[in-house]
Amino acid sequence: MSNAKSLEELEQKQDFIRRHIGPSPAQVSDMLSALEVSSVQELIDQTVPASIRLEQPLTVGESRTEVETLSYLKSVASKNKVFKSYIGQGYHPTNVPHVILRNVLENPGWYTAYTPYQPEIAQGRLESLLNFQTMTLDLTGLDLASASLLDESTAAAEAMGLAKRVSKAKKANAFFIADDVHTQTIDVVTTRAEQFGFEIIVGKAEDAVNFDIFGALFQYPTTSGEVVDITDLIAGVQSKKAIACVAADIMSLLLLKAPGKLGADVVLGSAQRFGVPMGYGGPHAAFFATRDAYKRSLPGRIIGVSKDRLGNDALRMAMQTREQHIRRDKANSNICTAQVLLANMAAFYAVYHGPQGLKTIAQRIHRFADILAAGLKAKDVALKHSTWFDTLTVVSDSKDDVTARAIAKGVNFATNHDGEYSISVSETTTRADVAELFDIILGEGHGLSVDAIAADVEANGSESIPASLVRDDEVLTHPNFNSYHSETDMLRYIKRLESKDLSLNHSMISLGSCTMKLNATAEMIPITWPEFANLHPFCPLDQAEGYQIMIGELHDWLVNITGYDAVSLQPNSGAQGEYAGLIAIRKYHESRGDAHRNVCLIPSSAHGTNPASAQMASMKIVVVNCDKNGNVDMNDLKAKAEEVAENLSCIMITYPSTHGVYEETIREICDIIHQHGGQVYMDGANMNAQVGVTSPGFIGSDVSHLNLHKTFCIPHGGGGPGVGPIGVKSHLAPFMPNHSVINVPGTNIGNGAVSAAPYGSAAILPISWAYITMMGSEGLKQATEMAIVNANYLTHELSKHFPILYRGRNNRVAHECIVDLRPLKEQSGITEMDVAKRLQDYGFHSPTMSFPVAGTLMIEPTESESKGEIDRFIEAMVSIKGEIEKVISGEWSIENNPLVFAPHTQGDVLGNEWDRAYDRFYAAFPVPAVAKNKFWPTVTRIDDVYGDRNLVCSCPAVETYRD
Amino acid sequence: MSNAKSLEELEQKQDFIRRHIGPSPAQVSDMLSALEVSSVQELIDQTVPASIRLEQPLTVGESRTEVETLSYLKSVASKNKVFKSYIGQGYHPTNVPHVILRNVLENPGWYTAYTPYQPEIAQGRLESLLNFQTMTLDLTGLDLASASLLDESTAAAEAMGLAKRVSKAKKANAFFIADDVHTQTIDVVTTRAEQFGFEIIVGKAEDAVNFDIFGALFQYPTTSGEVVDITDLIAGVQSKKAIACVAADIMSLLLLKAPGKLGADVVLGSAQRFGVPMGYGGPHAAFFATRDAYKRSLPGRIIGVSKDRLGNDALRMAMQTREQHIRRDKANSNICTAQVLLANMAAFYAVYHGPQGLKTIAQRIHRFADILAAGLKAKDVALKHSTWFDTLTVVSDSKDDVTARAIAKGVNFATNHDGEYSISVSETTTRADVAELFDIILGEGHGLSVDAIAADVEANGSESIPASLVRDDEVLTHPNFNSYHSETDMLRYIKRLESKDLSLNHSMISLGSCTMKLNATAEMIPITWPEFANLHPFCPLDQAEGYQIMIGELHDWLVNITGYDAVSLQPNSGAQGEYAGLIAIRKYHESRGDAHRNVCLIPSSAHGTNPASAQMASMKIVVVNCDKNGNVDMNDLKAKAEEVAENLSCIMITYPSTHGVYEETIREICDIIHQHGGQVYMDGANMNAQVGVTSPGFIGSDVSHLNLHKTFCIPHGGGGPGVGPIGVKSHLAPFMPNHSVINVPGTNIGNGAVSAAPYGSAAILPISWAYITMMGSEGLKQATEMAIVNANYLTHELSKHFPILYRGRNNRVAHECIVDLRPLKEQSGITEMDVAKRLQDYGFHSPTMSFPVAGTLMIEPTESESKGEIDRFIEAMVSIKGEIEKVISGEWSIENNPLVFAPHTQGDVLGNEWDRAYDRFYAAFPVPAVAKNKFWPTVTRIDDVYGDRNLVCSCPAVETYRD
Repeated sequence: MSNAKSLEELEQKQDFIRRHIGPSPAQVSDMLSALEVSSVQELIDQTVPASIRLEQPLTVGESRTEVETLSYLKSVASKNKVFKSYIGQGYHPTNVPHVILRNVLENPGWYTAYTPYQPEIAQGRLESLLNFQTMTLDLTGLDLASASLLDESTAAAEAMGLAKRVSKAKKANAFFIADDVHTQTIDVVTTRAEQFGFEIIVGKAEDAVNFDIFGALFQYPTTSGEVVDITDLIAGVQSKKAIACVAADIMSLLLLKAPGKLGADVVLGSAQRFGVPMGYGGPHAAFFATRDAYKRSLPGRIIGVSKDRLGNDALRMAMQTREQHIRRDKANSNICTAQVLLANMAAFYAVYHGPQGLKTIAQRIHRFADILAAGLKAKDVALKHSTWFDTLTVVSDSKDDVTARAIAKGVNFATNHDGEYSISVSETTTRADVAELFDIILGEGHGLSVDAIAADVEANGSESIPASLVRDDEVLTHPNFNSYHSETDMLRYIKRLESKDLSLNHSMISLGSCTMKLNATAEMIPITWPEFANLHPFCPLDQAEGYQIMIGELHDWLVNITGYDAVSLQPNSGAQGEYAGLIAIRKYHESRGDAHRNVCLIPSSAHGTNPASAQMASMKIVVVNCDKNGNVDMNDLKAKAEEVAENLSCIMITYPSTHGVYEETIREICDIIHQHGGQVYMDGANMNAQVGVTSPGFIGSDVSHLNLHKTFCIPHGGGGPGVGPIGVKSHLAPFMPNHSVINVPGTNIGNGAVSAAPYGSAAILPISWAYITMMGSEGLKQATEMAIVNANYLTHELSKHFPILYRGRNNRVAHECIVDLRPLKEQSGITEMDVAKRLQDYGFHSPTMSFPVAGTLMIEPTESESKGEIDRFIEAMVSIKGEIEKVISGEWSIENNPLVFAPHTQGDVLGNEWDRAYDRFYAAFPVPAVAKNKFWPTVTRIDDVYGDRNLVCSCPAVETYRD
Repeated sequence: MSNAKSLEELEQKQDFIRRHIGPSPAQVSDMLSALEVSSVQELIDQTVPASIRLEQPLTVGESRTEVETLSYLKSVASKNKVFKSYIGQGYHPTNVPHVILRNVLENPGWYTAYTPYQPEIAQGRLESLLNFQTMTLDLTGLDLASASLLDESTAAAEAMGLAKRVSKAKKANAFFIADDVHTQTIDVVTTRAEQFGFEIIVGKAEDAVNFDIFGALFQYPTTSGEVVDITDLIAGVQSKKAIACVAADIMSLLLLKAPGKLGADVVLGSAQRFGVPMGYGGPHAAFFATRDAYKRSLPGRIIGVSKDRLGNDALRMAMQTREQHIRRDKANSNICTAQVLLANMAAFYAVYHGPQGLKTIAQRIHRFADILAAGLKAKDVALKHSTWFDTLTVVSDSKDDVTARAIAKGVNFATNHDGEYSISVSETTTRADVAELFDIILGEGHGLSVDAIAADVEANGSESIPASLVRDDEVLTHPNFNSYHSETDMLRYIKRLESKDLSLNHSMISLGSCTMKLNATAEMIPITWPEFANLHPFCPLDQAEGYQIMIGELHDWLVNITGYDAVSLQPNSGAQGEYAGLIAIRKYHESRGDAHRNVCLIPSSAHGTNPASAQMASMKIVVVNCDKNGNVDMNDLKAKAEEVAENLSCIMITYPSTHGVYEETIREICDIIHQHGGQVYMDGANMNAQVGVTSPGFIGSDVSHLNLHKTFCIPHGGGGPGVGPIGVKSHLAPFMPNHSVINVPGTNIGNGAVSAAPYGSAAILPISWAYITMMGSEGLKQATEMAIVNANYLTHELSKHFPILYRGRNNRVAHECIVDLRPLKEQSGITEMDVAKRLQDYGFHSPTMSFPVAGTLMIEPTESESKGEIDRFIEAMVSIKGEIEKVISGEWSIENNPLVFAPHTQGDVLGNEWDRAYDRFYAAFPVPAVAKNKFWPTVTRIDDVYGDRNLVCSCPAVETYRD
């Protein structure tokens, strides 16, 4: 028998590359033929300017198999020590209900979905997010809630921003933070204030009223566990026309009066302990609620109820006109990504447990705290407070001894305040745990019996929650929280919602600029390993060795890939990354005595987040024009740079451009900025077209954020989480974020944090780590090349039918293209919206609509789509064009055609009356391929205006469930 | 704050019980009101005869939480030592592709489905099973394949059965087994032969031709690894008109000539190493192929291609008239359950890798075997054979030393043959592993370099596979094996198929007698833990301590629950259990000198498997009549028992009866049988109505099988796996199955095995273990009681509209009821089939149809369904009755009504022509509840006769994919 293949070939070490990349070799060959090039290399040569091509290959290692990768990562993860955490401070152990773990967190139907910009094919997660909002409203006692923010600390910073916008104390420039707010929150809010130019006053809660402030933040219960009636504090703040913000523990709110009922204007917090693992800091969903009056100032996304064309209730993101992609530098905040996947998990946790179940869990936590306190008091241990929900703080001379005993038993307390330590009880605490706590704190032989104390507490009741603060109203009364308490019912509810949503497991989601590539299963598997999932972000570093190794390797690879010198993994979204990058630039200038440098140049084509971020860093924005080809107008750039040279801080530029082309002048742009003393911020949104082929550092940029949820395979989760690390050249490295609880090496001590946790959303970093490991240097480059091949093939085919808006050298595009629908619209009256909705009938999620140019679709197939799928998409687009032509020809009227009635639901096409110009079957099955993989929108086109005018952002009343 | 709840209440140790049981307390109360009883207890008193009520509660422990349960089980599992296995003998380490692991094995969409008896809502798994059959045909080189059998050894026993049926050597009564067949296969086939009364001849393969036989079995490659050209052996056997059967290694068939091409009549084997973990023995799918001429004798299920009403290709189980539920004691085999979930995994493995990928994996395995052999030969180690695919057998004096070194390094070899040991290379073997093997075999300092040997082998080629046996034909050329090689494409293919199938995550599947209860996520999680998944069934016992503990606990609990004295967990299906139970009875009689006792009494209402099993144990079946109430006719029983007393072996009886009632005379029945020297075999199909309330042992039975996949929560997997342990009274215990490789304590050494592995499908036993642990004694009893409440509520409501066929005391039913559709059929012409198909339009899987009585539906809601779901089902049934009434009234004709056209597909209701008597919307959405949870059948009613007449059981030709 001949041995045609070498052992190395048989070992298939590069197997993952072909799994990640969609097209087969034969398909690649076909596409290259269509493009009239003889090799991938030839296409890349035609497309990417020679001047920016990397001279050396990446050095992230060779491709490793899935098995090797997970086996190695498991050995790394096992270096983490999973101690019992009583650290609290916003992070608590929790039991993830297994039915949610498997069917939401580990299910591509949920985790691969995109942000619900196409609500007709996203009613499932929209309902779940509405549950999240309803839960927030019920627990906080306020009127209006958002569909999650990034974490508690950034939510607090957003609250400060809101306070500034809405406070009537217009002259005040100070924000007060009670000194018993979580340390990391003080840190993040202070960082934000510094950039906004606000003064931060940290002091005793009762002193807030003594300052000239536009807002104040209290923690409820406090970080050391005290349950304080904040009614008067709130009233005091409000008496100064300032806004009273409360950071609250979500679990405590089952037992404590709602802060909204105590008068708070804003209530926020983390939903982590509602069934989302601690994950060494994230991702978790923050909740945020405020008064209806402030709805136009609320940061982030709100899900609202509206009507569809047929009058049915239909959900969608409401009031998007508030958001950064519309309002740019006038936006409330730069936040884009929410934490949808985690918000869904928390909402499902509430749905599964229901109000009684949640209350029981909260009572259990509180009971164990009471038992622990009773035992300690019996032994004359000094407790700092006489009230608590779950956290006891012990004032102690023997703190070091106790801590040592705790560590020896695999137990962590919070020890970051001098002369005291705190113990936070969680859902997972048991009788045996409390007995162990007695052993640790009192030493062996203390003679306490948990059962006996429990009986005492049961008999005598407890005053640890002041009577005035005992919650007495009903919460979560909506049927959604009272119907799915058996696992069977819960499973079916999750499935029913999942089925309404189009995800990557159904078809291509070719969102330009959003890079919806494969989220491989092997990448997802490690995130639910207990060794990664169950670490507290503030645990001692020597317990997180596995994390440090994994983060260290990822850091080094990202340095290599970006051509920078250092990377910070703290920013937990792309926008957060932009913000952190701009802070680094600003601090750099300040360090050189250039504090006055505050002008940020932004090309007119930029994503709205760029100006919004610059505004948050108090930069003055100067727009640079683009020429008719969509490229930066170099003359305008030179003129503007010169004009503002004295005060030039930086330029923010995306590469390849938001128009999807490799601008030839990018090096020159960098040079011009540098010549005028500015820094170059290169937005990493389009890194998918750079990796292994070029790099921002190589091109000459100083700082970028990366979207690990785009280029590096973290799934979009239906609208979050995202991770937005920044890479910087060495001169900026000292100015990257640090953290006040856990020092982050390599950056200046004292630098503020931008996220609540030192390494941001650490729990999902294994996804990007695994992607890079399995692809290796060669695979990463191939991915970029194939993204370019796919995009150019798509462009080539679509260009036979539609004008393509921008192209680069040799008429090539980068990794995406913009199809111009305006000429057709002009002729027919059919809008880009009609096309987007009609695509749903064909089983496709619309590409990016009207960005960066109104009236267009920006399409990015990514390297993970096969030619078969791309061809199906092309077929759909061509068929839709044919439909538009029938409108133009008059065969169909503008009022009666499948485009304006799109999308079609089952109810619509099966209605008894049918007076359409096209037949029912055609409405739903316009081309044969659809029949093999039909996806049904569950509502018809949604009336956004109606919903914004009649804003409802909690679950609709029961009656609507009756019909 | 008052402490209304005790700590114990707050701890919610019984939380899982309410998760498993569907109805909420309020719903239970409503149902009890409808039943006019004041408590569950009252209903149970009315329903279950006092004489059989347990006097003592179960003692399986108190309910434990999901977290406690998994935490404890993890500690147990960690006592297993996961060594590298080179044991081979039919079980090999394999890499489960992660996309299959997560999206098939861990996905309730796949694992909770029922057997595809309703093919219109099962086209997804039917396509996958057709892939399995196509793969089998391609690899074996034969004409006709089944959709999986239980394991390789039982498949071999089935082959013997087929050989006996089809061989023209009618006088021959002997079956030949080559002595180099896997040991456990010789064991299982011998057991089967003993029962059939066949003689088994084990001898050198080449001697087969010297005996007077009806069939022979060869292993290819042999158990010690030799690759022999079996062409002449086969021809020799066939020259005697005997049937040549070959047990083949599936992976080797990528490189070796197909046994079918060498002339074999039957080829079988295990598909385990195609991506299904070893799992300490199972479950895995066996494949089985034969010639078209023998199609009516093929055991088990065959998936075939037919047409639906509209002429579209549609899949369904073909030729069911061959099967045991139709042919009873004339059946080919008693096999019911297949291994659908595992067959699907194996088929997806082939789809994902494709022919080239599989061949590369096989070549890699072979290459490492070559490298290992070359190294050993260079060091003068004596290899037993000069040919091999993956297994080398070393003849050695130093076997013990080598084995000890292997164990010390965490490595297992096959050592169960004297004076030699074998090493089987697998997909997971690496260069480092081969180097380690050299170290083990040769001792350190051997100086061999794997890389150098690899280079040699590459350069020189290999003759370890004889040239005459090198495969040269193409396999797996069908597009399904050549289209889904990127993970994105694979994920979508899996999802597309899943979406076609109705599973428990969509709606109730109220299959009477099949007990489709919740398969809780927490129960499923342990089965993919590596500590359970990656053990070889023949590893040394001290490496399987975790398994032994878990199995031991489960054993003891099942003893307690059944009221028996001992349990065997070996039978890997219910039918296998029946068979094992009958063997025990037979051996018991023999041990007492009663070998002549061979009459088995079976009530006329029995499931067809009972007579089929009895026939396999060579028993003579005497049918006992039932009276008009469906109960055993006691007079007839007495008369028959008396009549056959001399030869009475046993009775096989189901309790509660297959009519769903607690027969009052069950104790008397047991007594009568015992009086006449017989044994009572109580079929465990309806154990769901016994657990905690009564038990077979308590009632007076001697032996039962349990369906762990019914009562004890192992999911049905779309048609398997099942697990069918038997419980016995102490006098039968010595006669339970043992195993020739691994001794099973508590049973006589030398007892034959009924399954390939000593503990059967050990890998899924944690599911039942976890269920019992989490429910505890109290929960198990509650489950039974709630199953009775649900069934009686359903019966009560349906009885307002339909006659209920049988009831027990106080007009109550047990855990299921039979709705009689015959009167309506007579009036209207609408058949039970029409009703079953129309239920699909309402989103429900039909209950059991025409069993045990033709023209009826047998409905079992189980305890896991909530009242809400039961009410929806009732609403559907009542609405359907209304539809039938319209046919009766003449409003609709018998030819044109929604029942005869059911089920309705999207294509059907959207057709351009619509001449139906009902409207389109009504066809698909007959009641409002459907709109909230529509499930669409993907084909219309299937023409079974067409399919059986034009049998096609491989994937349809490419052309059909083109339209």
